[in-house]
Amino acid sequence: MSRIDRDGHPSNPNHIFLTGGASFGVSLMLSMLISNDKSGILIPIPQYPLYTACLARHNGIPIPYYLDESKHWSTNPDEIDRAVAGAQSEGIEVKALVVINPGNPTGALLEEGVMRELVKLCEKHKLVLLADEVYQDNLHQKENHPFISFKKVVREEASNIPLVSFHSISKGATGECGRRGGYFELANVPEEVVELVYKMASVDLNLPLPGQVGVDCMVRPPQPGSPSYDLWKSETGVIHDALARRSTIMVERFNKLPGMSCVPAPGALYLYPRINLPEAAVQAAKDAGKEADMFYAHALLDETGICAIPGSELGQKKGEGHFRLTILCDGVEEYVGQLETFHRRFMKRYQS
Amino acid sequence: MSRIDRDGHPSNPNHIFLTGGASFGVSLMLSMLISNDKSGILIPIPQYPLYTACLARHNGIPIPYYLDESKHWSTNPDEIDRAVAGAQSEGIEVKALVVINPGNPTGALLEEGVMRELVKLCEKHKLVLLADEVYQDNLHQKENHPFISFKKVVREEASNIPLVSFHSISKGATGECGRRGGYFELANVPEEVVELVYKMASVDLNLPLPGQVGVDCMVRPPQPGSPSYDLWKSETGVIHDALARRSTIMVERFNKLPGMSCVPAPGALYLYPRINLPEAAVQAAKDAGKEADMFYAHALLDETGICAIPGSELGQKKGEGHFRLTILCDGVEEYVGQLETFHRRFMKRYQS
Repeated sequence: MSRIDRDGHPSNPNHIFLTGGASFGVSLMLSMLISNDKSGILIPIPQYPLYTACLARHNGIPIPYYLDESKHWSTNPDEIDRAVAGAQSEGIEVKALVVINPGNPTGALLEEGVMRELVKLCEKHKLVLLADEVYQDNLHQKENHPFISFKKVVREEASNIPLVSFHSISKGATGECGRRGGYFELANVPEEVVELVYKMASVDLNLPLPGQVGVDCMVRPPQPGSPSYDLWKSETGVIHDALARRSTIMVERFNKLPGMSCVPAPGALYLYPRINLPEAAVQAAKDAGKEADMFYAHALLDETGICAIPGSELGQKKGEGHFRLTILCDGVEEYVGQLETFHRRFMKRYQS
Repeated sequence: MSRIDRDGHPSNPNHIFLTGGASFGVSLMLSMLISNDKSGILIPIPQYPLYTACLARHNGIPIPYYLDESKHWSTNPDEIDRAVAGAQSEGIEVKALVVINPGNPTGALLEEGVMRELVKLCEKHKLVLLADEVYQDNLHQKENHPFISFKKVVREEASNIPLVSFHSISKGATGECGRRGGYFELANVPEEVVELVYKMASVDLNLPLPGQVGVDCMVRPPQPGSPSYDLWKSETGVIHDALARRSTIMVERFNKLPGMSCVPAPGALYLYPRINLPEAAVQAAKDAGKEADMFYAHALLDETGICAIPGSELGQKKGEGHFRLTILCDGVEEYVGQLETFHRRFMKRYQS
């Protein structure tokens, strides 16, 4: 929906930059924020690896802050304070805070109170807030867990922190990743910096045209009374309902498996279950020269064809085991059934 | 056409990287070549500004070498030798040589003998050769001025210089810039470096799908006997013939104008006429705080709507006046007629 409908606050078109997918915008903003080899960026752990990859590309320092699994993967401002202090003690200049909301891989949704605290924290440490909000339209429990944009919070708090919000067409109803469309919106960014962003963005010349068409469709969907509204509403409704249903079924069944627990995810397209693997499995992984969750994920792939991303690849703390699964697969019964069969067999194989 | 048909030498698919247009490949390779703040890249002048923009973005040093207008904008290896020596005397580490063939903005085509000399020069100075060959299918005098790829020359010389060749669908028969498709091919690049390129290219996730389809169509066009060959041949033939005809007409008529001369361009989509402006025009430009060719181009735009890129924006030597025009405009008679009328009026306005 248009940004004023979403936030109750208008947008300035000169502060919106179209991109070929959100990742190009993230890469561009990180490259501009990293001014020397002491520039650090706060990133959530577990994280979507785009951030560490872009930081590596632009010689920036990732400063991890940990999300709290015991509280539905919520973000704890104190934990970020701790990470800032730790980085500063190592001589790192902390430039920006990345928040992914809804979360990837966790699917968590930030509550408004936490968002206000995060804005205050950016004020305190003079941080740019990089809000990765690409899953804002992928909500499975809209009533209890609505999406609130950081732009809305920043405006309502009358905060002056510089904010960059990223969005993408890749995560819409049908997931049009291959069209490459996205945008980022700047708020509280000085005009002379906006001009520099414009200059840097122009180096990439033109953008994929089908992606630009997609962005237009995304931010201006059919309205009640318009000719295509009913069809659009019913088609996207079917997709969103199916995603919500799958997410619920998968969480319920994962939580019944031995050695597995899974936090429900009100947003995004993933689940991020935790696995507590038997000692023998951990040892077998070690013998194979792999992290335990990678060992599990490889076996899952080999035996079922299901591809899961191990948490160790997403920065998860050493010794913990997790994997990220999408909720995109049709035929959830068969899919979860295969995973259950595999998991029980795997656990049995390594039971003591 | 497929690379083995073009060059007589096979390609390794693992050494070909699809990109969202040639410019992404150029930016990626420049970012990898620039290892510190003393890394320099040889670029032709006049140049397509992508190179200086990418070098600025990645903190690389542009090392200009000048093309020779008196010899149809040919590339003189001695001039490059001079530029290398100059850069080295300033402590710059010269990493790579950019060659744009067919030329942008000049439309020049390199002769095979010169290409051999350039390969030898890269051997001598241990340079990576970055061959921007995006206009390889835009040829207006194929019989006298065929396109020869650097890959062919490197292979035939049995040279071991690392070569990166860039191509794009943006400059094909219909100019599908908005689909964003391209590729680069590596030759003589060590496998461990190929692996790093693969890793860096992967940070950008997926590419525009329509662009990938376009690349496939470009490198595997319909062959004689296939159902769509005749239509394809006639449609693209009409376009290529029109471009060649326009280029010829424009050169002929520009060369009849007072104070203008224009080197014929056997390739690409541009002409790059030289203008010798009256003293009073140069003074008027100075009074307006503009380069003389920019002053001319602004007047041209204001009075006719024709947009030309002044040579001063393409790195041209101070004091010379040039502008780049495309040969894309339908209705060449009217277009050139407007430019002629403007030019005569402009020259008269400032005549002494």
